[in-house]
Amino acid sequence: MVIERIDDLQCRGYRIIQDSEVFCFGIDAVLLADFACSGVREGAAVCDLGTGTGILPLLLAAKTDCARIVGVELQPRVAELARRSVALNGEEQRIEICLADIRDFGKGAAAQLFDVVVSNPPYMKGGLVSGSESRAIARHELYCDFEAVVAATARIIKSRGHFFLVHRPNRLPELLETLSRHHLEPKRLRLVHSYANAAANLVLLEAVKDGGSQLCIEAPLIVYKEKLQYTDELKKIYGLPQ
Amino acid sequence: MVIERIDDLQCRGYRIIQDSEVFCFGIDAVLLADFACSGVREGAAVCDLGTGTGILPLLLAAKTDCARIVGVELQPRVAELARRSVALNGEEQRIEICLADIRDFGKGAAAQLFDVVVSNPPYMKGGLVSGSESRAIARHELYCDFEAVVAATARIIKSRGHFFLVHRPNRLPELLETLSRHHLEPKRLRLVHSYANAAANLVLLEAVKDGGSQLCIEAPLIVYKEKLQYTDELKKIYGLPQ
Repeated sequence: MVIERIDDLQCRGYRIIQDSEVFCFGIDAVLLADFACSGVREGAAVCDLGTGTGILPLLLAAKTDCARIVGVELQPRVAELARRSVALNGEEQRIEICLADIRDFGKGAAAQLFDVVVSNPPYMKGGLVSGSESRAIARHELYCDFEAVVAATARIIKSRGHFFLVHRPNRLPELLETLSRHHLEPKRLRLVHSYANAAANLVLLEAVKDGGSQLCIEAPLIVYKEKLQYTDELKKIYGLPQ
Repeated sequence: MVIERIDDLQCRGYRIIQDSEVFCFGIDAVLLADFACSGVREGAAVCDLGTGTGILPLLLAAKTDCARIVGVELQPRVAELARRSVALNGEEQRIEICLADIRDFGKGAAAQLFDVVVSNPPYMKGGLVSGSESRAIARHELYCDFEAVVAATARIIKSRGHFFLVHRPNRLPELLETLSRHHLEPKRLRLVHSYANAAANLVLLEAVKDGGSQLCIEAPLIVYKEKLQYTDELKKIYGLPQ
């Protein structure tokens, strides 16, 4: 049974169609959109590798004056949901959902180059995978590992273009090494902690193609002040009253 | 003119002899000693690469039940100050100050292996160096770069031994890559921020020789609550009343 729902993105009235059988967006996508939007200039061409139901293109369309956003998605059913959300928000002119495998995307002579690439890739290596196949593909590196995401980014991004991603802290050494190896130099790192006294559970990273090596680790992003009460910064990012 | 002073380490009555013409210890050494001491077991053999006036051996002697600590120092005048501090605290049985170049230390058949290695190495690459030669050697990679510190650590540490270091966040990608390359797997990372809303200015890192790749990024360590007022955690680390 397909159970669809429409969620309000709390940002300029934008909405998204989701399906509980398919991976639904989480806080990671919202934080990544916020982290990335300062780097998306007016007129920029943006690509989202592994767009899912299109949450990042929709949020970046709502938050920035970019010229166009291409969302690349492997799964036909998920790409179709993303396309319907794009239409629901009247963004067909700016957002294109492209059904493709990241491992092949941007190969060939006609390949276009992007100013900005964003990605919220699968976090988990192999391991035990259960439940919905669609969710498993979104969460586990079944069809696309981090190496493939970075190789695709390096292929489609302009020199001095900016790559924004969200991932897990336990893989930070590998993330930094893979980026550097593809000449995507890590420039900005922000750690997300549920509470001020808790270990980090997400990393937000910005890398610049052909940039120099100089990393800034920004102030930590804390989600909750106390039990389930958002900090002021999180309320602002979520568009909630403070 | 040599101006010496004796400072109280606020820890079990330990004191250190310093000289204002020589590099004086800073908050980095105090934070590193605190970060490392949980990993120093009873009876452990510890080595401090680039010990300066011996601040890390003295703090670790005060805080742990390790069996012995070897502090390696290149500069004769600085090593002599360290030896006098060791004697001042009656720690000649546990602490040995070894006048040696890190690049040569631990080579040869008689080399000993350590359970724990600590280091507060020079942070800065080349660049403009002015003022005291002794301070310049402590701060700039004139005689010893990070690669040399990690190579020495890999040479003198037991398999599964722990390496603790403090460095600057802007070099984090290089730090992690260098450690991994020498089979010192980064396991624990803590970022130090002057204020909760400021970028990090120090990184504390723990690596395990021949360990698996799984990094934990701990809660941020915040130094000040407000202007020049220490947080409770910092007061605890410095042994100040809370």
